[in-house]
Amino acid sequence: MEETIKFVQGNEACVEGALYAGLTFFAGYPITPSTEIAEHLSQRLPAIGGKFLQMEDEIASMCAIIGASLTGKKVMTTTSGPGFSLMQEALGYAIMAEIPCVVVNVQRGGPSTGNPTAVSQGDVGQALYGTHGDHAIIALTASTTQDAFDMTIEAFNLAETYRTPVILMFDEVLGHTREKITIPKKGAVPLVDRFRTSVKQGVDYRPYLPREDGRLPMSDFGGVHRYNVTGLVHDMWGFPSNNPKVVASLLRHLMDKINNNVYKIARYKEYYLEDARTILISYGSSARSALHVVENRRRRGERLGLLELQTLWPFPFGLIRDKCANARYVAVVELNMGQIVQAVKMVLPSEKVFLINRYDGIFISPTDIKNHLRLIHGRGV
Amino acid sequence: MEETIKFVQGNEACVEGALYAGLTFFAGYPITPSTEIAEHLSQRLPAIGGKFLQMEDEIASMCAIIGASLTGKKVMTTTSGPGFSLMQEALGYAIMAEIPCVVVNVQRGGPSTGNPTAVSQGDVGQALYGTHGDHAIIALTASTTQDAFDMTIEAFNLAETYRTPVILMFDEVLGHTREKITIPKKGAVPLVDRFRTSVKQGVDYRPYLPREDGRLPMSDFGGVHRYNVTGLVHDMWGFPSNNPKVVASLLRHLMDKINNNVYKIARYKEYYLEDARTILISYGSSARSALHVVENRRRRGERLGLLELQTLWPFPFGLIRDKCANARYVAVVELNMGQIVQAVKMVLPSEKVFLINRYDGIFISPTDIKNHLRLIHGRGV
Amino acid sequence: MEETIKFVQGNEACVEGALYAGLTFFAGYPITPSTEIAEHLSQRLPAIGGKFLQMEDEIASMCAIIGASLTGKKVMTTTSGPGFSLMQEALGYAIMAEIPCVVVNVQRGGPSTGNPTAVSQGDVGQALYGTHGDHAIIALTASTTQDAFDMTIEAFNLAETYRTPVILMFDEVLGHTREKITIPKKGAVPLVDRFRTSVKQGVDYRPYLPREDGRLPMSDFGGVHRYNVTGLVHDMWGFPSNNPKVVASLLRHLMDKINNNVYKIARYKEYYLEDARTILISYGSSARSALHVVENRRRRGERLGLLELQTLWPFPFGLIRDKCANARYVAVVELNMGQIVQAVKMVLPSEKVFLINRYDGIFISPTDIKNHLRLIHGRGV
Amino acid sequence: MEETIKFVQGNEACVEGALYAGLTFFAGYPITPSTEIAEHLSQRLPAIGGKFLQMEDEIASMCAIIGASLTGKKVMTTTSGPGFSLMQEALGYAIMAEIPCVVVNVQRGGPSTGNPTAVSQGDVGQALYGTHGDHAIIALTASTTQDAFDMTIEAFNLAETYRTPVILMFDEVLGHTREKITIPKKGAVPLVDRFRTSVKQGVDYRPYLPREDGRLPMSDFGGVHRYNVTGLVHDMWGFPSNNPKVVASLLRHLMDKINNNVYKIARYKEYYLEDARTILISYGSSARSALHVVENRRRRGERLGLLELQTLWPFPFGLIRDKCANARYVAVVELNMGQIVQAVKMVLPSEKVFLINRYDGIFISPTDIKNHLRLIHGRGV
Repeated sequence: MEETIKFVQGNEACVEGALYAGLTFFAGYPITPSTEIAEHLSQRLPAIGGKFLQMEDEIASMCAIIGASLTGKKVMTTTSGPGFSLMQEALGYAIMAEIPCVVVNVQRGGPSTGNPTAVSQGDVGQALYGTHGDHAIIALTASTTQDAFDMTIEAFNLAETYRTPVILMFDEVLGHTREKITIPKKGAVPLVDRFRTSVKQGVDYRPYLPREDGRLPMSDFGGVHRYNVTGLVHDMWGFPSNNPKVVASLLRHLMDKINNNVYKIARYKEYYLEDARTILISYGSSARSALHVVENRRRRGERLGLLELQTLWPFPFGLIRDKCANARYVAVVELNMGQIVQAVKMVLPSEKVFLINRYDGIFISPTDIKNHLRLIHGRGV
Repeated sequence: MEETIKFVQGNEACVEGALYAGLTFFAGYPITPSTEIAEHLSQRLPAIGGKFLQMEDEIASMCAIIGASLTGKKVMTTTSGPGFSLMQEALGYAIMAEIPCVVVNVQRGGPSTGNPTAVSQGDVGQALYGTHGDHAIIALTASTTQDAFDMTIEAFNLAETYRTPVILMFDEVLGHTREKITIPKKGAVPLVDRFRTSVKQGVDYRPYLPREDGRLPMSDFGGVHRYNVTGLVHDMWGFPSNNPKVVASLLRHLMDKINNNVYKIARYKEYYLEDARTILISYGSSARSALHVVENRRRRGERLGLLELQTLWPFPFGLIRDKCANARYVAVVELNMGQIVQAVKMVLPSEKVFLINRYDGIFISPTDIKNHLRLIHGRGV
Repeated sequence: MEETIKFVQGNEACVEGALYAGLTFFAGYPITPSTEIAEHLSQRLPAIGGKFLQMEDEIASMCAIIGASLTGKKVMTTTSGPGFSLMQEALGYAIMAEIPCVVVNVQRGGPSTGNPTAVSQGDVGQALYGTHGDHAIIALTASTTQDAFDMTIEAFNLAETYRTPVILMFDEVLGHTREKITIPKKGAVPLVDRFRTSVKQGVDYRPYLPREDGRLPMSDFGGVHRYNVTGLVHDMWGFPSNNPKVVASLLRHLMDKINNNVYKIARYKEYYLEDARTILISYGSSARSALHVVENRRRRGERLGLLELQTLWPFPFGLIRDKCANARYVAVVELNMGQIVQAVKMVLPSEKVFLINRYDGIFISPTDIKNHLRLIHGRGV
Repeated sequence: MEETIKFVQGNEACVEGALYAGLTFFAGYPITPSTEIAEHLSQRLPAIGGKFLQMEDEIASMCAIIGASLTGKKVMTTTSGPGFSLMQEALGYAIMAEIPCVVVNVQRGGPSTGNPTAVSQGDVGQALYGTHGDHAIIALTASTTQDAFDMTIEAFNLAETYRTPVILMFDEVLGHTREKITIPKKGAVPLVDRFRTSVKQGVDYRPYLPREDGRLPMSDFGGVHRYNVTGLVHDMWGFPSNNPKVVASLLRHLMDKINNNVYKIARYKEYYLEDARTILISYGSSARSALHVVENRRRRGERLGLLELQTLWPFPFGLIRDKCANARYVAVVELNMGQIVQAVKMVLPSEKVFLINRYDGIFISPTDIKNHLRLIHGRGV
């Protein structure tokens, strides 16, 4: 397949990215503003021999992709906030059982059914803490349609690399913004395939024994090995255990395999950070307004920079600390009442951290940001 | 009813507290280590004319108490981590629709089915962020059986005062520790009753028009007013709206009614803080070990203090800042991989904040804490 | 004269204060929003044997009161921004020649003819720096009608004490707000009268020889001494000199007599500063909105305080430093684009100093202040 | 015209610069130490067809150049402190009506008639705050005769670029110091000419509608358009308005067009700043003594540097912050009681900022500076 140029919505770019990455199984339940993803896949997947399942709800959808993943498929489901809440229990199962899968949340205004189809980035905290118990998660986002394509591929790659669910935290403006994307020819973007065990049939396969590099080779369900998969704390064979050493070591493994690789997982873009006195940190569609402000103000000599996060979790604390060390003001631009700003406050002196936000369903504009900046700089309105 | 002394588990103390507070409707699905609460209520509630419903799952349980609350009852459900994850969507509905209810999570080891019946405080982050969208929550905890009784009453009072779900974040050790409690005579502990509207039948009742003090009088479903209740963003009559001003003002109201009252909601105990050079912050059962260490070391002249949090959310940032302003070391003692410590780092310089924890299902002992303190004080292991 | 209660505008309260303080000579040119002062004095002064002169412009007005003051009268003129600019040269003369007088600027929107009769505090910087050359000035303000009365008396007292012009920086909202004032009975408020020389006729009177306490006794023009008064640098007899020691010592005297007495001259009110984490600094009518916010938030447990400045110049740097030492945020609330905030930034770390302002002619409301505070506290909108 | 070398006073260099820049209209009233400028122009201007008007006072002078500028001329007036005070009201009008003009203040000792013909830099604060109301100003200075020539051209260029009055804050020593200057050939220094509208006759010309780059094309009075010019707040057609949005947007425009371009407007020279442990900040003639000290001490290995400001307002806060970030001592050398030092204290920790000054009419010498430095460095006098 040759390089292709398309003019598509972010949601369609996600479809293209997923297919490029090797998606062959999708299960989901429609909810705006994510529905176009399912809609397109309902035609595209069968055409390539993949499976598309419209499920009865989001719990079933999440469970279906978990099962399919265990058979060796690359899998995905999509939803928005209310469905994401319903997925939390099964998501915890996928974390515990270390099952690669991609969950897309095209965010709309919450809580509850909230403000449907209006833009929001209000589920970002939930992506980290939504399911019970200590755990780590990988969550990515994107600000442009091209990035939506790229980060979707990245999500599949990280899910396979770290044997974990990866959350794509898109937002309504991204999902519905129509832009040109370039789909590279097959092979141009490296793909991470299912890491299968080389243990032969009849030999003792230990599905939860990490290799030295922390990775765990899998064996397709229905294949040559029979083994236990559970949401309970388990030993290297997958059998339940409440031995304190087993408990501590499994939880530590689940955390470390992700948090210790934060520098590898962290995707971001930076603009004019070297000498920036004020740094905007943003992500998703709001980063576009932030970038507009930065480029506009740079022309006037103002030392403004932008750090656009594409990986939200694991939170790149070290990156933030380094990039913002010399900045006097750090303002997090986000479309919620302040979620990522709290992570930023954990590593920077809170008196230099500010929140520039909007949460009324209206997209934050460059002018909104500029007005907030004046106040932050102590210059009044 | 006269003052009574009982020798009960924390879970039974919770039952006593709920009944004292006026609980008349319970719906739930059993899960260890919370089951004793439902078990006792299945006998106690019918005896006083209340309703006990064993539901088919936790989603149904949460929805049942929401409906019952709207008819004017004081309601409760209980669960542990996995069930709590399943309740997240309906919990968001209760937040959005401002329905008073009490949800008890007697925590066990997670994630997923995890480490059943072993102690944990691993759902503390989820209590704040478990449901999607920006929102605020009240979450309380307790370290003794008597406190379990007291904080359960407090939970009902706060739920009615702020028209919101209140989460009781107990843990397995507390739930199963048997101690003496004193149940005061009726009337000795002030109770907050349902705040009902004085608007007469046939007059325009606006269920979501806050009074000047932020409170919203309710009208019992099945009573004289018919009105709309929805999880969508809604206007003062409860009808859906996506008007940006309505959106912003409702979300701000939901946040502010709780977060602006953090000083009123914050319950805590303090021990030897005045001159403490090292302050332990703890909550739930682990605070008992921390207190033991503090009292033991004070006798030797060490300037050690303890701040025991009983309100976890809204997080008492101001309290932490004030109490720890002069401490050189602040160590958070918790039974997870570091959840409350992150909130502490938002207000104190992270270089003086440490984590003393255990997450292997074993209760943290005074000796565990002492060993950590040596390291923190730079004196090696 | 007995204590009297009146219901008057701020401008009339100024008239009452001036008459109470002993005003007997007024010269002025009408300009809104100050005109009511002249209007009332045009009737009140003749009635008590005083002189009221309507002059051809503000330069003439300023010069007339300078001359009258030299004859031993207590004098005043009133104006608004454009007239105040015209007075700057003669104001410098009064500073240099050390002539007691009171100049009232009821501020309206500038620059130039600007936004007449709309409220502003935009001339505050000019009060300090409006005339050329190094100099010090005393400028007072008020937030209530009663304060307008009190501070007018204070202005006359300070003018006589320090032999200097005193500027009353009122604003339109104050000038036109009608409130109850209590005029104390004669003698209840101590008055500072002209400090006349005891040097006898025919003896060498040195009008510019400061006594040990820095004060300079005056001799009424037309009286027993003939002496020189000039805007040039002068020696103790009032005769011009360019001797560097004379120059330095005169300039130092003009500065020190005011700036070294900053603690005596500083009038202010404080509200809840002891434990305040956020301190609002305000003055004039905007301090009323600030006070409203502070009292409202204190009821909710927020540690907000207000420092209301009644003396603007000499700027009470030490006071600000002391009162704000433990505050984390200091926000100056003013009706301009940031003038007093700059003085505050000279003594406090600029990263903790913010500006809450409005400069569109509309009075700043408590809601405006609250909205700004959210951003300043890093909590977004 | 070829490059020319002349041996002239600073005041004459100003004349040469003004003529080079395209001055064709001058109105003024003589006052030492500025008089030579008018004197020379009274001969030079008529010789090239320009207009020289000796007015009755400084108010009239300022008004005359405002009117002439509106007809499309490049205009200038000159004065010293007392005249500058008299110009303040009309200066505000030029700011508000956005009329390009150059005002030269060759400073002498103040306040009032002060210490005539003795050097001073005492009107620097007045240049910023002399007229009432919020406003921004551009003020330049120079330390050598050649700089006086260059900065005069710069003043005309900035006045035309930003459609605003520009103040040249010279001082007596500069005005009367005779040095060699090189006048470049015509065309060697880029000149900014009047930016005239391309709107045709009969088409709706909006004199106060800023283009996207903030500039406002002008139309010569007496030309094809009739339009309103007022000192009142006005709309895009120049008609008065008190609409709060119009008020805020005009004031913000007047501020931003200057303050947002601080990096473009900032002219300065730096000497040995890279590794300087002590940085002198100076301007005008006193910078010559400062430079002498720096070069002298560098030869001895002392890490002393000089930042000479040529633009005083808008104050280059960012520049100061950057250049002085690594210095341990920053000493402002100025010929007044401390005016620029206060701006410096707004951006640097006040404990590292010192003032080295003289205000007795005598020029500050290198020895004066060296003596102060000993004290600042803690080595006693």
